[in-house]
Amino acid sequence: AWLPYRIKDLVQKPLGKGFLKVCVIYSIQITEEVRKLLELKAQLGSNDGKHQFVLKTAKGTRDYNPKQMAIREKAFSAIINCFKRHGAETIDTPVFELKETLTGKYGEDSKLIYDLKDQGGELLSLRYDLTVPFARYLSMNKITNIKRYHIAKVYRRDNPAMTRGRYREFYQCDFDIAGQYDPMIPDAECLKIVHEILSDLKLGDFCIKVNDRRILDGMFEVCGVPDDKFRTICSSVDKLDKLPWEDVKNEMVGEKGLAPESADKIGTYVQLNGGAELIEKLLNDISLCQSKVALEGLNDLKLLFQYLTLFGVKFDLSLARGLDYYTGVIYEAVLGPSQGAAPTQQEEHTETSSVGSVAAGGRYDNLVGMFDSKGRKVPCVGVSIGMERIFSILEQQVEGTEQKIRTTETQVLVAAAQKKLLEERMKLVAELWNSGIKAEITYKKNPKLLNQLQYCEETGIPLVAILGEQELKDGVVKLRDVVTREEVDILRVNLAEQIKKRTGQP
Amino acid sequence: AWLPYRIKDLVQKPLGKGFLKVCVIYSIQITEEVRKLLELKAQLGSNDGKHQFVLKTAKGTRDYNPKQMAIREKAFSAIINCFKRHGAETIDTPVFELKETLTGKYGEDSKLIYDLKDQGGELLSLRYDLTVPFARYLSMNKITNIKRYHIAKVYRRDNPAMTRGRYREFYQCDFDIAGQYDPMIPDAECLKIVHEILSDLKLGDFCIKVNDRRILDGMFEVCGVPDDKFRTICSSVDKLDKLPWEDVKNEMVGEKGLAPESADKIGTYVQLNGGAELIEKLLNDISLCQSKVALEGLNDLKLLFQYLTLFGVKFDLSLARGLDYYTGVIYEAVLGPSQGAAPTQQEEHTETSSVGSVAAGGRYDNLVGMFDSKGRKVPCVGVSIGMERIFSILEQQVEGTEQKIRTTETQVLVAAAQKKLLEERMKLVAELWNSGIKAEITYKKNPKLLNQLQYCEETGIPLVAILGEQELKDGVVKLRDVVTREEVDILRVNLAEQIKKRTGQP
Repeated sequence: AWLPYRIKDLVQKPLGKGFLKVCVIYSIQITEEVRKLLELKAQLGSNDGKHQFVLKTAKGTRDYNPKQMAIREKAFSAIINCFKRHGAETIDTPVFELKETLTGKYGEDSKLIYDLKDQGGELLSLRYDLTVPFARYLSMNKITNIKRYHIAKVYRRDNPAMTRGRYREFYQCDFDIAGQYDPMIPDAECLKIVHEILSDLKLGDFCIKVNDRRILDGMFEVCGVPDDKFRTICSSVDKLDKLPWEDVKNEMVGEKGLAPESADKIGTYVQLNGGAELIEKLLNDISLCQSKVALEGLNDLKLLFQYLTLFGVKFDLSLARGLDYYTGVIYEAVLGPSQGAAPTQQEEHTETSSVGSVAAGGRYDNLVGMFDSKGRKVPCVGVSIGMERIFSILEQQVEGTEQKIRTTETQVLVAAAQKKLLEERMKLVAELWNSGIKAEITYKKNPKLLNQLQYCEETGIPLVAILGEQELKDGVVKLRDVVTREEVDILRVNLAEQIKKRTGQP
Repeated sequence: AWLPYRIKDLVQKPLGKGFLKVCVIYSIQITEEVRKLLELKAQLGSNDGKHQFVLKTAKGTRDYNPKQMAIREKAFSAIINCFKRHGAETIDTPVFELKETLTGKYGEDSKLIYDLKDQGGELLSLRYDLTVPFARYLSMNKITNIKRYHIAKVYRRDNPAMTRGRYREFYQCDFDIAGQYDPMIPDAECLKIVHEILSDLKLGDFCIKVNDRRILDGMFEVCGVPDDKFRTICSSVDKLDKLPWEDVKNEMVGEKGLAPESADKIGTYVQLNGGAELIEKLLNDISLCQSKVALEGLNDLKLLFQYLTLFGVKFDLSLARGLDYYTGVIYEAVLGPSQGAAPTQQEEHTETSSVGSVAAGGRYDNLVGMFDSKGRKVPCVGVSIGMERIFSILEQQVEGTEQKIRTTETQVLVAAAQKKLLEERMKLVAELWNSGIKAEITYKKNPKLLNQLQYCEETGIPLVAILGEQELKDGVVKLRDVVTREEVDILRVNLAEQIKKRTGQP
């Protein structure tokens, strides 16, 4: 009986005119409603009239403080340099798309998409990755050839594990090549890029695992998986990085109704792991090569291996990956020591190995066609670098070495040795700004010189330009090196030039 | 009677278990429901089973193509340089906040906030600006001193006018100084920054209009506006950039119940416009100076004027602005010729003058305190540069001059003069990448030399490194200048160095 009154208490705004919806709520829903109301009540706080709320960011998200930003900017700069080194352009798309644009692209993961509230007008969702918006962009603008990168945040209502770098809002750095080209040349470049970026970022050992959707499909075929079960069995196989083989098998047989002997055959394949010799072995597997698609996939991987040898990149063939929209080669980069030999069950299935994934990608030749009214295809291959895990590692590295990271680039502090020189400091700092010098003053009218020098030491400003009555009279400025404490008088007209010289500014 | 069937037709997924809500919908709502259903039906397309949908970005949003990105990056780089020149750090916050964080901060504009759908868990909204998240960040981390910039997209469900650069998703570049300092020193630096940025971007003439919340409040006081009407009258005054005075007056008197003689008095003030002499005039206005807050505001503006003279920045005093969370100085930069004399009604109220606004800001000393359980304040002053209008102007400038903008930075194309040299091209391009050269190959196995040269001309690549059988034998590469068509043989070991030299890479 108390429920209607509580609802009334909690409603913040009167309902709009003409809102005459009458809702009869039955018992099963009441439990849920009560839970939500109690939650809301907790947020609104006690009844003393004072508005209380939790001061936090949304679940699974975080702020970046200046130090974290300095690390982030450094990582982005290395990645952007690599993308530019490979001749990529860049584009940007909105953070939300029409809900329909994302529909049917992510298989079972669709439930993780953030929807916007229907406030009248279009139904919108936050982007889940940068690949589907890219395909929408290509189709909408009828672009058939482009090599582009895109660095932006994406959104997934997944279970966050923030200490291990898994967030609901996270950055992806995507590089993709769209266009009809000769086999495996763009694919090889994408893998070369992953290799360059992970090397440049100095994250330690990593290993690149490669597969091909066609080998997976062919394997399912020869293992006796019915055509209409390929997708769902594939998504089971994809869980091998989180679950041991037995659990995956149980899911296939128990939940998805696959014959146990089919599952066992799949097991022998998906637990394989190796290099060029494994490709040869599989090319000699008479059973597997009965599948035309598997043979195509194997031959392409052989070519990819050749090209990557020319690029100086090594990878492992590992048959346990298969994401939804990929049609050809599929790859994933994992941090940690390379697993030349087949890993033990233990190694393969620990949580660390799964969150060690920092880049993934592959060929998706059908995605753009899904947006075209005539189904015209644009073949694409690309890679996506997941940044939060990388940021975590770089942050830990900085913590570890007690390295001091500057969060500003200020070259000089304009300081006063006596009182009543605010106006003179303002005039001089403006002169320096206008000459392109990064300069600051403190915002006190009469700051102490000691406090000004301390500010430099705390923030890493290397130089102080000190003004005093005498300096003003003589038309000079005392330039002090914060570390050596050396001081020299410099003619005011030469100050900007001297600061540039001492701080290595071109 | 047909309604329930149509609803069933359009539902894409079965309702969840336990969903027993029964809704009785009355007549007024039916019209709205039918409209929505018809809209949805139009989106879903005809009944021929083929899924049709509109290929577009969400209303009020847009993609950036590579050319637009090149312009955008250039503008950002000028702005970031300026922020760094003034010693600012940078931070980042999530794109959405708890809905409650935004509640009560935007007055009448709150209706323009994008809410996320309640998918279980927290109620979230997309950020409406960067200022409220900044205040939340300061309070949450108990930061009392920071000078930071933040460049990110914000979201407003406003009426878009995209040809004039008004979008629902748009970039803001914010610079703010938080901390207890001596009066008007940080405020002056914010205005100096606006001046530097708008000058650096070469957008043509602009003018900076300044006001102070305390002068507005004092003016309301002496004009006889009741205390509890300050906020709402202030938001009417704020419409003066879009509406003529008569309309604003009608709103104040008709809708908001202000006495007509009060409105008339306000009218004489808010239509004033001028420089230092206007401050003096107002300081001699006996009526206005009866208000203690107005006097405080006027004295601070006088000080601000002095400081800005030292910084070499001019501004206009204009009494017609007053946003919700500002407590002291308020400013706005408007593109177009400076209006030294009071503008005519016509000039002041055309649509162009309103969309000419490209930067706005002010002092907000109470916002951080709203997040603190004990109400502890952190005084702040800042400015926000609205980017979309600026991008539009820069894009138009580029279109106007038929300037060719490069969208990549590739220095050299590795090309082959004969067939069957793909592997050699791959080896050489990898050598160049590893030496830090920005290099490309075309993705054909046997491309024609002519096509490779054309690719360079189209994309602006300045150099071609040509491989042929002879060059391979001699250990050289033919380096061709695309513009002059000059060719020289260069020892392969010296190639990277030569390319750096010719493209001015340090």
